[in-house]
Amino acid sequence: MTSASSQLAKPGFDHHNLPYCSFMIGDGDADAKLGVRLGDHVLDLEPIAQELDASMVGWFAMGNLDRILAGSPQMWASIRKAIKDWVTSDKHGEVIAKHAYPIEKVILRMPFTPNDYVDFYASEQHALNVGKIFRPQNPDLPASWKQLPIGYHGRAGTLIVSGTDVKRPYGLRRVDGKVEFGPCRFLDIEAEMGFVCGNGVNGPIDLADADQHVFGAFILNDWSARDIQAFEYVPLGPFLGKSFATSISPWVVPLDALKAARISTPPRDEPLAKYLDDSDTEPSALDISLEVLWNDESVSSPPFKVMYYSYAQMATHMVVNGASLRAGDVFGSGTISGAEVDQRGSFMELTWNGAEPVTLENGGTRKSLMDGDVVEITAKAPGPDGSVIDFGSVIGRITG
Amino acid sequence: MTSASSQLAKPGFDHHNLPYCSFMIGDGDADAKLGVRLGDHVLDLEPIAQELDASMVGWFAMGNLDRILAGSPQMWASIRKAIKDWVTSDKHGEVIAKHAYPIEKVILRMPFTPNDYVDFYASEQHALNVGKIFRPQNPDLPASWKQLPIGYHGRAGTLIVSGTDVKRPYGLRRVDGKVEFGPCRFLDIEAEMGFVCGNGVNGPIDLADADQHVFGAFILNDWSARDIQAFEYVPLGPFLGKSFATSISPWVVPLDALKAARISTPPRDEPLAKYLDDSDTEPSALDISLEVLWNDESVSSPPFKVMYYSYAQMATHMVVNGASLRAGDVFGSGTISGAEVDQRGSFMELTWNGAEPVTLENGGTRKSLMDGDVVEITAKAPGPDGSVIDFGSVIGRITG
Repeated sequence: MTSASSQLAKPGFDHHNLPYCSFMIGDGDADAKLGVRLGDHVLDLEPIAQELDASMVGWFAMGNLDRILAGSPQMWASIRKAIKDWVTSDKHGEVIAKHAYPIEKVILRMPFTPNDYVDFYASEQHALNVGKIFRPQNPDLPASWKQLPIGYHGRAGTLIVSGTDVKRPYGLRRVDGKVEFGPCRFLDIEAEMGFVCGNGVNGPIDLADADQHVFGAFILNDWSARDIQAFEYVPLGPFLGKSFATSISPWVVPLDALKAARISTPPRDEPLAKYLDDSDTEPSALDISLEVLWNDESVSSPPFKVMYYSYAQMATHMVVNGASLRAGDVFGSGTISGAEVDQRGSFMELTWNGAEPVTLENGGTRKSLMDGDVVEITAKAPGPDGSVIDFGSVIGRITG
Repeated sequence: MTSASSQLAKPGFDHHNLPYCSFMIGDGDADAKLGVRLGDHVLDLEPIAQELDASMVGWFAMGNLDRILAGSPQMWASIRKAIKDWVTSDKHGEVIAKHAYPIEKVILRMPFTPNDYVDFYASEQHALNVGKIFRPQNPDLPASWKQLPIGYHGRAGTLIVSGTDVKRPYGLRRVDGKVEFGPCRFLDIEAEMGFVCGNGVNGPIDLADADQHVFGAFILNDWSARDIQAFEYVPLGPFLGKSFATSISPWVVPLDALKAARISTPPRDEPLAKYLDDSDTEPSALDISLEVLWNDESVSSPPFKVMYYSYAQMATHMVVNGASLRAGDVFGSGTISGAEVDQRGSFMELTWNGAEPVTLENGGTRKSLMDGDVVEITAKAPGPDGSVIDFGSVIGRITG
C-alpha cells in the first residue's frame, strides 16, 4: 500500500476498527492467512509478527481466528494492542506495507470455524410484525417474549462467507392449498448482527462477564424459505426453511472496537429475571446502523439499537441452563426491524407477506427474491473520537 | 483376554457386531485410542494394524472415528473386513490378545467429534401421546407430520458420552402460575436411536444412497427439562429445555452390522413425496429393541421398528433443501414410543405428565427424575445367523 498513514486516514477502517479476517492471495490454492483490515488493504499478520514480535506468531499461524478464540480475553487485548501499535507507529511503515494486500486482490474466507449456531428473535418490532402478518386475530407477542430472549439452534455447517452464491432451496410447501415438492417460492432475507464466542466455559455465566466469552461481531443474513418454513415449523421450529444457508460478513469486529457504540437497552415493560437484568451492568446494546441493498438499491435501514435484548443477554441466556459454550460458537440477533416501514429487516415484512410488493428501479416489482437477485447488507457504528466502525458487508446472489 | 475365540463366543459382541469406540487406558492422562469391542474386551486397532496390515494404520491414528467418517463407504467396508478377518483368523490370536483390554479397565470417550446435531420426531405414538397430554381438545398430529419427518437442530457441543453425570438444568418456568427462575422440576429422558454421518456431501441425496452417507448407529438419551421447554418453545421450538445435555452410548455399530435387522417401514396413511418414498428402496427401518432402566429397574421397552420414518428418510430429508452434510453430523430419531404403556420412551408419557406416577421397587414413587437417579437405556437387534447385535447402553446419573 502507499503507506500505513494513508490507510489510517480512511474512515471506517482506521486503527480504531482493525477487524480480523481469513484471506487467501491469488488463485485460491494458497494457504489461508489471518489478516486485519486497514483502510482498503488487508495486513497479513503472521509475517508481520515474525518481523516485529515473534512471540505473537503462534496466535496467527492457523490462518483464521480459531486459535485466538480459544485464548483468553487478556490475550485478545494484548494481540489487539500489539497490532494497533504496529500500524500506528512511525517505525514500522515498511514492514506493514510489505505485508499489505489491496482488498480487491484477496479472496476472503470464513474467518473462524463455527461450532454451534444459535439464532435469536430479539427485535420487538419484528416479532410484532410476524404476529400481525400470520396471526392477525391474535397478533400478540409469544407469552415468554418479554421474559427471555427466544432462540433456537441453526445449522452451523451451512454458515457461509459473504460472496458465496445461495442456491434456491427445494422442499415441501403448500401451493394453492396443495402440498407439493419444489423450489422455494418465497425466498427471503433476515438482516441481523452475529457474534462469535471465545474462551469456552461451562455455563452458567454472569451477565457482567459476558464480554469474557464474546469475542466480536459481524453482519449476518439468515436466508429464509418462508413457504418451506411455514409448512414444517409446527411444533419444533424452523428447520429446512433456514438450514440451506446463512451468510456472514468476512470481518470480525472485536468488541473492543465497539465501546463508543454501547448504549442501554430499551426500557423494560416487564421486569427481567436476575440473570438477565442489565440495569446495573455496563450497557451492552449497540448503536449499529444497517442498510439492506436489493440489487444495489437501498430498501431498508434496520437500527440494531432498538433490539430488546443485547448480545450480552443473549450469551448469558444461551448457557443459563448449564450448557457449555465453546470457542467458535456463533449466535445471531434475529431479524432487526425498526418501527418505520423502511427499517424492516426482512422482505416478508417490507412487502407485508407479498401484499405490498417493492418496486426496484433496476429490476421491476418484487414480492420476494428472484434468481439472479443480489442482496447486500452493510453496517456501521460510531467509533472513538468521532470515528466510524465499518462492518463492511455481507453479500449473496441467488442462483436457481 | 483368554483368547479371541472365547470372546467370539460371547453373544451380542461377536464378530458380527464389532462396534467402534474411543477409549483410554488407566488414569485418563493417556491418549485416546480407536477400538472395537469383541466380547468383553476392547481391541486397540492402531497397534494391531501395525503388526497385521500397516496400510491401515492411518485410519486408526486419531484415536476416534473422525478420520474414518471422513472416508468413503468403500473404505468403511475394507476396514471392517480387515478387522473381521483379524479377529476370526486362527493366525492372529496372539496379536489380538496382546492389544485387548478388559472393558472394565478402559475409560470410554466420545467416539467421534460431533458436528451438527439434528433431532427428529418420528414415532407416531409419541407424537400422539404428546398431543393427548398437551392439547387434549385437539390431540391430532401436527399438520405436516405424515408428509415429512419433523426435526430441529440441537446443541452439538453438549453431546456427551455415556457415564457422564447430568447436572439438573436451571431456567425460567411456571410454578403455580408464576414465572420463576430455578432448577428444573420435571426432568425427563427421551429414549432414541442416534446415527452418525460420514462421507460429507452437498445435498440433496437420493433415498437409495443414504447408506453412502450414514455410517452407524448408537443409543441416544435426549434429556429434557419439560417445564423449561414448555415456557420457552413457542414459536421457535425447544432450546434450553434440551441443550444442557444429550447422552450417547460409546459404541458406534456400523450399518453393515444391521443388515439382518432391516425391515420395511409401517404402511403409509398418506402418500409420501417422491424423495421420501421408500416403497422401492432397500428397507431401512430397523428392528431394534430398547429397554429403559430407572435406577436399575426396567420401566419400558420401546420398539424402534414402529418408527414411521427410517434413518434413511431422516438423512435424505435433512439435506433435501440443498444443505451440506458433514462427516460427524449426528441425528436422533426422536423419542421411541410403542402403542403399549410399557413401550413409552419418555417419563412424561409413562407417568402421563405426572398424573400416573411410577412406583420403583428401590426408590419410591416418581413423577420425574430426582437427583441421584440413574437412567440406563440398552438396545439389541437381530444379527446374521441367529446372532444378536448388542448396542451396549447409555447411562447417566442426575446431580443437583
